[in-house]
Order: sequence, then C-alpha cells, then structure tokens
Amino acid sequence: MSLKTLTEKIFARALKRETVKANDIVNVPVDRLLINDFVGAIVFRHFESLGAEAVVNPDNILLGIDHRIPPAEIKFADSLKFCRDKCRQYHIERFAEIGRHGIGHQLMVQDFVLPGEVALGTDSHSTMYGGIGAFATGITSSDAAIIMATGEIWLQVPASIRVNVRGQLNKGVTAKDLSLKVLTLAPLHTFIYKAIELGGEGIEALSISGRLAAANMLAETGAKNIIMAADEKTAAFIGKPSGELQMDRPDADAQYETTYEVDASELPPLLSYPHTPENVKPIGEGAEGLPIHQAFIGSCANGRIEDLEQALEILRGRKVHKDVRLIVVPASQKVMLEATRRGLVEELLVAGAAIMTPSCASCAGSGPGLIGAGERCISTTNRNFKGRMGNTESEVFLGSAYAVAAAAVCGYITDPRQFL
Amino acid sequence: MSLKTLTEKIFARALKRETVKANDIVNVPVDRLLINDFVGAIVFRHFESLGAEAVVNPDNILLGIDHRIPPAEIKFADSLKFCRDKCRQYHIERFAEIGRHGIGHQLMVQDFVLPGEVALGTDSHSTMYGGIGAFATGITSSDAAIIMATGEIWLQVPASIRVNVRGQLNKGVTAKDLSLKVLTLAPLHTFIYKAIELGGEGIEALSISGRLAAANMLAETGAKNIIMAADEKTAAFIGKPSGELQMDRPDADAQYETTYEVDASELPPLLSYPHTPENVKPIGEGAEGLPIHQAFIGSCANGRIEDLEQALEILRGRKVHKDVRLIVVPASQKVMLEATRRGLVEELLVAGAAIMTPSCASCAGSGPGLIGAGERCISTTNRNFKGRMGNTESEVFLGSAYAVAAAAVCGYITDPRQFL
Repeated sequence: MSLKTLTEKIFARALKRETVKANDIVNVPVDRLLINDFVGAIVFRHFESLGAEAVVNPDNILLGIDHRIPPAEIKFADSLKFCRDKCRQYHIERFAEIGRHGIGHQLMVQDFVLPGEVALGTDSHSTMYGGIGAFATGITSSDAAIIMATGEIWLQVPASIRVNVRGQLNKGVTAKDLSLKVLTLAPLHTFIYKAIELGGEGIEALSISGRLAAANMLAETGAKNIIMAADEKTAAFIGKPSGELQMDRPDADAQYETTYEVDASELPPLLSYPHTPENVKPIGEGAEGLPIHQAFIGSCANGRIEDLEQALEILRGRKVHKDVRLIVVPASQKVMLEATRRGLVEELLVAGAAIMTPSCASCAGSGPGLIGAGERCISTTNRNFKGRMGNTESEVFLGSAYAVAAAAVCGYITDPRQFL
Repeated sequence: MSLKTLTEKIFARALKRETVKANDIVNVPVDRLLINDFVGAIVFRHFESLGAEAVVNPDNILLGIDHRIPPAEIKFADSLKFCRDKCRQYHIERFAEIGRHGIGHQLMVQDFVLPGEVALGTDSHSTMYGGIGAFATGITSSDAAIIMATGEIWLQVPASIRVNVRGQLNKGVTAKDLSLKVLTLAPLHTFIYKAIELGGEGIEALSISGRLAAANMLAETGAKNIIMAADEKTAAFIGKPSGELQMDRPDADAQYETTYEVDASELPPLLSYPHTPENVKPIGEGAEGLPIHQAFIGSCANGRIEDLEQALEILRGRKVHKDVRLIVVPASQKVMLEATRRGLVEELLVAGAAIMTPSCASCAGSGPGLIGAGERCISTTNRNFKGRMGNTESEVFLGSAYAVAAAAVCGYITDPRQFL
C-alpha cells in the first residue's frame, strides 16, 4: 500500500494502520508535548478539573518557559512557581528552568522531538518541528490537559498540499524569504487545516536551521502542519545515526490536493510589510529607505547560530546606526553558549547590539524590547500584527537576519545584498 | 587654611572659597548629572514647566536607561521614546541608547565623572561616584530640572563622619561585607545627611570596583554622600595621569563629627537578612542552610568584572543547583564585553547561569527576575525591603558574589569560604 504523503505516513504509523485518509478523525498517541509558561498554569488547572490522578507519560512533556522570563511582573513570578511546583507534583522532570532555558520550540527540536513523531505544543508555532520531519502542530491548553490525562488527542488527518522548491537560494536570500514567498502562493484560506509538505532541491539544500525557520514561519498560512522529509542533515542535527531514526519519505504516487512550484533561484530578499505576515513584497516596493528605530534578531523562527552568522556577515567591521537599537536574543542557552564560544556574542557586542537572555522577548508583546508609538522595527520574528510588538501606532517589518542587520547599520530598510 | 574633610574640599573648590562649614547652605555648580529612565519623562516635564529656553551645559548630563529596558510594557517604550526625543531637542548627546547601555551609575563612573567633581543623579545610589573621590548624592526629579535650567543646585554642606579601616580583608570577604559592617556601626539615624568619609589601609587596599560597591551600598545608611580619596588606582581606572586629576586628600587636622574604627581583617562574610539592609549578621546566625530559589549577581552595587570573577572562583567546575536559578546581569555593555572577552560569560553559561543584558533587572522590582510568593533569593544588590524584588511574601538576603555563588551551587545559603 502506498499513496501516502509524509503527514499520512506519520498518522498511519501512530495508528498502526496501513493507511489513513485525509479528513479522517482519529485518536493518536502523542509522542511529545510542549507546554509553555503563557498557558502553563491554565493547563494544570484544566488537567486537575478532569479528575485524573496522574499524568500519563510525564517523560513525554517539556514545560518551556519563554514568554515571560525572567519574570518582570510579580504575577508571572508566582505563575512560574505554580508551574514548577506542579511539575514536581506530577513528575514532569523537563521543566526548562532559567539557566537551562530557551524558547520552548527550540528546546523541543534541540533535545527532544524526533523525525516521524507526533509532537504538539500549546503554541501556534509548534509547526516548527515539521522542519525535522515530525507531525507537529499547535493545540489549546485544554487539549494539552487531555493529553496529560490520556496520552492521546483527536485530530482530523489534514489533506496535503505539496510545495516543490527547485533551484537554490542566491546569496543574501534565506529560508525566511522562501517562506514569505510560499505565503503568497495562494489566498491564505487555501491552506487552512492542510498539511504543507515542502520538498525538492531547494528544501534539501537548506540547513536544518533554515528548514525550522520555514516550518515555523509557515504557521502563518493557517496550515495544520508543515513538514519536510528528514535526511542525513536531520540525523546529524539530532546526533543519531539515520538508521535509528524514522526517516520517512513521501510515496512517489502520494496524492496531494494541490501542488505548487517555486524556483528558489529567482527569489529576491522579501519582507512582510505591516500589519500582517502575508503582506509580502520585495524591499524595493515601498520599504527601501524607510527609517527604523529598532532591529530585532531572535525568536523561534530565526534566533539560531545561522541567523547570528548571517547578521555578522553584515555587522562585522560595522556599527549599529546611532539612532537604532539592535536587540539580539539567542533562541536557547545552548545557542547562546555556542554563540559565545564561536566569538559571535563578542562581535555582536562590538557592533553595538544588546544581547538578551534567551526568551520570546518582545516577539509576542509579552517581554522586553517593545516599541513605542511612531516607532518602526524590522525583525526576524514571525508576526507583525498591529500592536503585536508594542504600541498599536508602531510598525513592524519581517525579514531575514541579513535584512535586519543591513537596516541596523544603515538606519533605514535596505537591500542587504549590497553588503554581501 | 586647612581643617577640611574630603567633602569640604570639594565644596570649597566648587564655590571658589578657602573653606566651607558643615551645615552651610550653598549654591554649587554641578559638574555631572545623571537622569535615569525611571524619572526621565518627569524631569523633562518639570524642566519645561520652569519656562527655561535651553538646558545649561547639556554636555554635563547623561541620560541613563536602566530600570525598564529593554521595555517590557508599552508605556515604558513610549516613555523612552519621549526621553530620546527630548534629548535631541535639548542637545543632550549622552543618551545611553540600548546597545551602549548600562546601569546609569556604572556609566557615570566608567566614562564621565572625575574625582573632585560634584556629580549628582536622580537615584539614591548616586552616592557610588564617591568611590572615585567625587562628591556624589541622589537628588529628586525637580532638583534635576533646576540643574538643567541653572547649572546649579542648593545643598547643605554635610558634616563628616570618618570611618578608618585598618587591616585588610581576608579571602572570601569583600567590600560588600565591609559595607555591611559599616551599616552596623551606629543606629542609622546617626548617619542621616552626613558625609561618610572612608579611609585607611583597608580602603586603600580595595580595588576601585570594591570602593564603588562600598560607596553604593552605604547609601543605605541614609548619609548624604560617601567618599574615599582618589589615588593612583583611581587614576588608572579613569585612564588619565594622576597629575591631571583632582586627587584630594583630607587635611590631617580635618574635623569630623565622629570617627569609627573598623578592622577589616576581623570581618567574616556578612549578610543583610530580610527585610532591611542594616539587618546584618554573619551567615551562621540564622541563614546557614536556608534553601534558596534564586541567586542574583548584578546591580550598580556588585555587577562588575570583579564580582563575576569572585562568583567564578566558586562556580568554575561546578553547576548551579537544579532547584536554583542563577541570574547574572553585567552592570554595563562595557562590562559584558569584557566578561565575554575574558571567557567569564562562557564559564557562567557552562555553570548554568542566565546572563541578562545590562540593566537594573529585578533589583528595584521594575525589571525581569522577580520572585514569587514563598521564594527566597540571595542577591548582590543593595536593598532587600519587603517586596522590593517581587512578591511581598518573598525573602531577599544580600551578600557578596562569593556568598551568592556558594548558595547557587549548594541550593542553600552557606559560608563561601569552604569553596575558596
């Protein structure tokens, strides 16, 4: 039996069936669950309202603290303490305490989720783990409570949409730009509750960091999940021999609802213009020359070593413009340590960047780095809704670390390729 | 004419007089003024209410942003933008923008205040600049506005109290412990509006970092200012030949209201017990063995290289206890860069510390790192009032970086000398 997409293969394996059909409603065991601090206390309260006596598979759960850490309001400090205490009570040992912290999504791929698994999280950008070949999607806090009580969740098997990426990205154009291009392939309602399966030379050529960025960013399509086949790069990233991993590939005759073609080699740097991620245009179509006040490199989408290295290709030997503040937030302590060891932190400081401890920071409006009325920010994050990063009278443009670094140096938005 | 204390010498020079008397009320020109983000917007509004057309000596002003940066609330982002715009309007070029930021007091001594100057700040720990031989004290936001409009301020010349420190500190005992000892020399009302002049072998033996810590911490006496004679160490710290600096020494026959004697060599590590800084006792008198939840190294008092090095004497080769979060906040970007270059940041990360971008963080309850109800923190900061660092149902102990690091490793408060 074949005819299966990557997503269908994972569902079939999880259900121990030969096949599954799109739109089937099924109960699947959950291999990995992320609960974050944004909803952590609510999840535990939901769980306790169910009357369950114990958490099923506490070792499958990671409690990530990222939206509000270190806590800058007393109520958040109290909420964290509540989560810590509950993790102890229910034997959840993966409480990502401050000091071994990071953005939950980054911790999930760094040390936890494996290809072929069903990996869910209480946050919409949980789609990111599809970048290493898992079925991954965001769920609600009550869903998470049910998983804690039963180990399972009901899901509707999504129909798959295939995006074939041929060619390779040119210098200065990144997985972020590619993701923004995919956001424009069709009206967003086309993607709602679908599995977007990306493949082809252009995807194979991406680093794992790039694939994660794309699987993260494409949550903005409204798709149920984003997925790419795991390969040797994935195995190297995870640090296990590929033979020990579920390295699914879609069947050659798999059925897709639609197939789109993208030529990576034709893409220029792209930006999401205010105030929605799918408002994607090249830099020259209105953004070039716009003064900025803040430049932000970080988030689960683009806060990894590759992003810091891209930024430094432009920042090295240059200084952040005097009217701009550049904020850099490594995605996890592991990323920060590696960036420190490689000298990237030193170089960023020399260029005039502020380096913050790993967290979501201002990405979701819940942490430090917010912008005021009349200010404009260019950011590697994944959403630019009105007021998301600060005052509703501010503007956020989204782009790659190259685009952010170029703007940080110039004081205005500009094509980063001039520096490369 | 002699008979002058260090503080009186600075007043006499500022007033171009032979001498001054304690309790004289005088108008003095202000050499340096720190305005911080906590009151920045208020200072500008006060200033504008005075009807002055221009700021007198804008080059004498530093606008430090430290209490609420990067801003985690929209109103603080808006307030910072207001301060930025006002600095431009009034030609105040020293706006310590994010990226070249730090705790205002650290920036004042690092790049601005000189020995013998009158240096004021809109924050009570402005006394710190006395560690490099300046007359330094905290003022209100309306005082700052008057200085902006006139270049002067009225002050009452404080009577001087002398503290002679003989002997030298033993290993594991620091300027912090010495300061805590001084806090216990007399009931606090004894020190209100006095100049505390520290001198003797024990002060001369301190590094500049230690002198700054002491001049900072002793704000808790209620003294008007704290002061120590500048010397060759001070000149080296500032980076100028001593011949180009005002290197005042008190006259041999200077008159002090009181003189206290302290033997540095007899001091053990000390802690401020909850909930007030002068509640000082040795570790063994009630603190030993108390479990902690958070350990904090930072602040204007103790967030310098010397503090990080002291912490690493204990943390190197060890790990932060699993139930403890250790938060380290370098006092400025310059400190963070140096700590990065020297490998201290890497070692702290390896030990399991979170490294935050320079700011006051949770020290004054206005930034990240707050603690919840029922939690206990040991901290190098300067105040442990009930609720200052988080929930009013939490406890804060104050001590040296040695004491904080030892507790971070053990999970409970303990004598750091066992590790040294």
